[in-house]
Amino acid sequence: MTNNTENTSFESEGLTREVVQVSPELVTEVIFALNNHDKEQLDFLLEPLHSADVADIFEQLDDSDRKELASFIGAELEPDVLSELDDSTLDDVITEMDDEDVARAITQMESDDAVHVLEDLDEDDQRKIIDALPAEDRLAVEEGLSFPEDSAGRLLQRNLVSIPGLWSVGKVIDYFRSEEDLPDEFYEVFVMDPLHHPIGTVALNQIIRSTRDVIISDIMNDDFKVVPVDMDQEEVAYLFKQYDLTSMGVVDTEGRLIGMITVDDVVDVIDEEAEEDLMRMAGVQETDITESVFEASKNRVLWLLINLVTAILASMVIAIFDASIEQMVALAVLMPIVASMGGNAGTQTMTVTVRAIATRELTSTNVKRVIFREFSIAVVNGVIIAVIIGLLSWYWFANMALGGVMGAAMVVNIIMAGLAGILIPITLDKMDIDPALASSIFVTTITDVVGFFAFLGLAALVLL
Amino acid sequence: MTNNTENTSFESEGLTREVVQVSPELVTEVIFALNNHDKEQLDFLLEPLHSADVADIFEQLDDSDRKELASFIGAELEPDVLSELDDSTLDDVITEMDDEDVARAITQMESDDAVHVLEDLDEDDQRKIIDALPAEDRLAVEEGLSFPEDSAGRLLQRNLVSIPGLWSVGKVIDYFRSEEDLPDEFYEVFVMDPLHHPIGTVALNQIIRSTRDVIISDIMNDDFKVVPVDMDQEEVAYLFKQYDLTSMGVVDTEGRLIGMITVDDVVDVIDEEAEEDLMRMAGVQETDITESVFEASKNRVLWLLINLVTAILASMVIAIFDASIEQMVALAVLMPIVASMGGNAGTQTMTVTVRAIATRELTSTNVKRVIFREFSIAVVNGVIIAVIIGLLSWYWFANMALGGVMGAAMVVNIIMAGLAGILIPITLDKMDIDPALASSIFVTTITDVVGFFAFLGLAALVLL
Repeated sequence: MTNNTENTSFESEGLTREVVQVSPELVTEVIFALNNHDKEQLDFLLEPLHSADVADIFEQLDDSDRKELASFIGAELEPDVLSELDDSTLDDVITEMDDEDVARAITQMESDDAVHVLEDLDEDDQRKIIDALPAEDRLAVEEGLSFPEDSAGRLLQRNLVSIPGLWSVGKVIDYFRSEEDLPDEFYEVFVMDPLHHPIGTVALNQIIRSTRDVIISDIMNDDFKVVPVDMDQEEVAYLFKQYDLTSMGVVDTEGRLIGMITVDDVVDVIDEEAEEDLMRMAGVQETDITESVFEASKNRVLWLLINLVTAILASMVIAIFDASIEQMVALAVLMPIVASMGGNAGTQTMTVTVRAIATRELTSTNVKRVIFREFSIAVVNGVIIAVIIGLLSWYWFANMALGGVMGAAMVVNIIMAGLAGILIPITLDKMDIDPALASSIFVTTITDVVGFFAFLGLAALVLL
Repeated sequence: MTNNTENTSFESEGLTREVVQVSPELVTEVIFALNNHDKEQLDFLLEPLHSADVADIFEQLDDSDRKELASFIGAELEPDVLSELDDSTLDDVITEMDDEDVARAITQMESDDAVHVLEDLDEDDQRKIIDALPAEDRLAVEEGLSFPEDSAGRLLQRNLVSIPGLWSVGKVIDYFRSEEDLPDEFYEVFVMDPLHHPIGTVALNQIIRSTRDVIISDIMNDDFKVVPVDMDQEEVAYLFKQYDLTSMGVVDTEGRLIGMITVDDVVDVIDEEAEEDLMRMAGVQETDITESVFEASKNRVLWLLINLVTAILASMVIAIFDASIEQMVALAVLMPIVASMGGNAGTQTMTVTVRAIATRELTSTNVKRVIFREFSIAVVNGVIIAVIIGLLSWYWFANMALGGVMGAAMVVNIIMAGLAGILIPITLDKMDIDPALASSIFVTTITDVVGFFAFLGLAALVLL
């Protein structure tokens, strides 16, 4: 016990956090043992670790050390280490391991972990490993891979506990005591009708609390939820969050129970989906920091190219007013402020909106109210910023009319930014386009174009 | 069962998602019943719903309907509805309810939910409700509130199952069958020494699988994790994610077990922390879309004001070169492109870095490698974008030298953006400042200032 609290003491000091079991010192020792080909020392270091921590060590190593470790201990690698690796590290590790070793590890995994390991490999590697599996596992894995990516089918583990409703608690307990092939962990059992349709669930604590003669169908919860196998994982995660679930059954199109999803997989989904939104809004594809420079550069440059087009669009607006700028160079000095503030205000509204859509707080019931609210916020903040920058510009260039133009352009742009920030994500969502993926490009284009146009246009009208 | 799959069919059609149990139609019916003061219809509509769905209905209503519903059904509100509400809706609802009704609801909650409901109320309301609690609950709630915000102490529920290691499985089962005051849900029991220090845990399925004569200490898991009561909730969430936990014990400074944290609360923490990072990077405080315009405007305008300062700073750089711009107005047309592309490239790197720090993928072991990697990506993408925009500018203004200056400034700015995008979050994290909160302001300042300076400075040197 004392040991445990010591391990998990948690002063955070920059990048070295005590709560992380994999300390930089441990990684250094692993690298040292690796370079000395000291198998004994390596086993000594890695053996006490949880698979998730061994996976972290793989991720922390550089390419050559990682490959060396993989080929060094690959044959005796804990299967779970593979399922804990991030995609690009997994690729590296599997490439170094014998296909037979990978296949052996996969047969020892729950079906969802096996699918997770295989799904991101390139087709050749996948094929080779699948072919090395025993027939039964091969079928299970192939079926798992046949479900759409990011669907409930990819998360489900086939091994679950199901019992008939007519059994007594005593019979269930005896069954548990004699049955060898139960899942490693489960929190509830599924009650089935003769056609393998689930009719209820019973939590384990409910079984233990009841006396042996109680009939299962009398204590089961018949107001339970199951999901179809092709449901999107985001929807599955929503149900777990909304109803505080620890596991949930998955049914096929005929309503037969074919597996269950447990909360630990859903935790990963929630994390992944939140990361995806964050990354997409910044124009980054799903990524690991272990990915190669070439891959990462390819992933990001597309976004930069799209942004280049919108930046050029904004420049073309400026070009319309080049004569005005030549007459009054103060316009060139001030114009980026209008665009930049609009961009910031738009990003605020857009982020709130994208998040509210993802968490389902924004619905068709309250959408009008929320749009009006964002419009009101934009008006209030637009006026505040406009007054300040208007006065500052007046003072800076000793030109009251210029201050007025600046203030007016700012109000216009921040209000437009607010409207764009809410209307664009909503419209994209209605069109079934992920608002996190595309909103910011449209919002920026609008705030840039409107910002430059409003400011330079007003200036041309009023000042020159 | 069929019923269930029907409810959870999941075509996504814009803002109306079928998997949401609270449909817009249902909300409309609730509003209609509310306006007719039709208590019977209201009960008919709300009674079958899960507390989380009733909470969603409260959140969907406008202010006046929400208050009316609260005062209408407040006296018989399911306690869990309160703990599922977002902060500003909770405030509205509690204000409308009698303090006694709120107190009654709170006594029926698990201790973590009670603390969650009370923690965000203003001090007067909090005091009044706490005073209305029975003595025992009052102490528990006051102690819960005494733990630091966002710490393990705020998440813990006191009600858990602990047993001595010497008990047999049979004795444990008999204890479960006779004991009334067990938690509603639990997945493991804690094994204690005589001084109330935890020495192991046993999963319920482990107990059910074993025969009655097996001694608990022989089947318990003694390699288990506990957390100190003042550990930050982010660290707690990390442990749950890393080790796929469903519950975990919480100990006081003497190592005595004082409660447990269950995975459903951790799921909320993960969601909350991801939202916080997303919002902070966009300059929005923690927020609900039910918050008032005034509150939201106040939360956001500070960020806009900080950005105004950096935008003015960038303008001052432009002002240095006003003579150059007067000579060649094409500079004014092109300069926002350099700044904007730098901003985008910087945001990409910064987002990847902030996320890698949050997920602990970025550590002192790999930090140098990751910095070099981001630098390399910036060089590659900088060169690609520079060549394209250089050629375009040359063509647009029929001026090869201008194209060269544009390209050179772009390379410089994108490389600076990449370095800023990784070094600033790392530095902030080392200084114990949340990188999500402050990075983007520094990154934008650098990309704006460097962008304008590099482009206009080079232009002044080379072209004029």
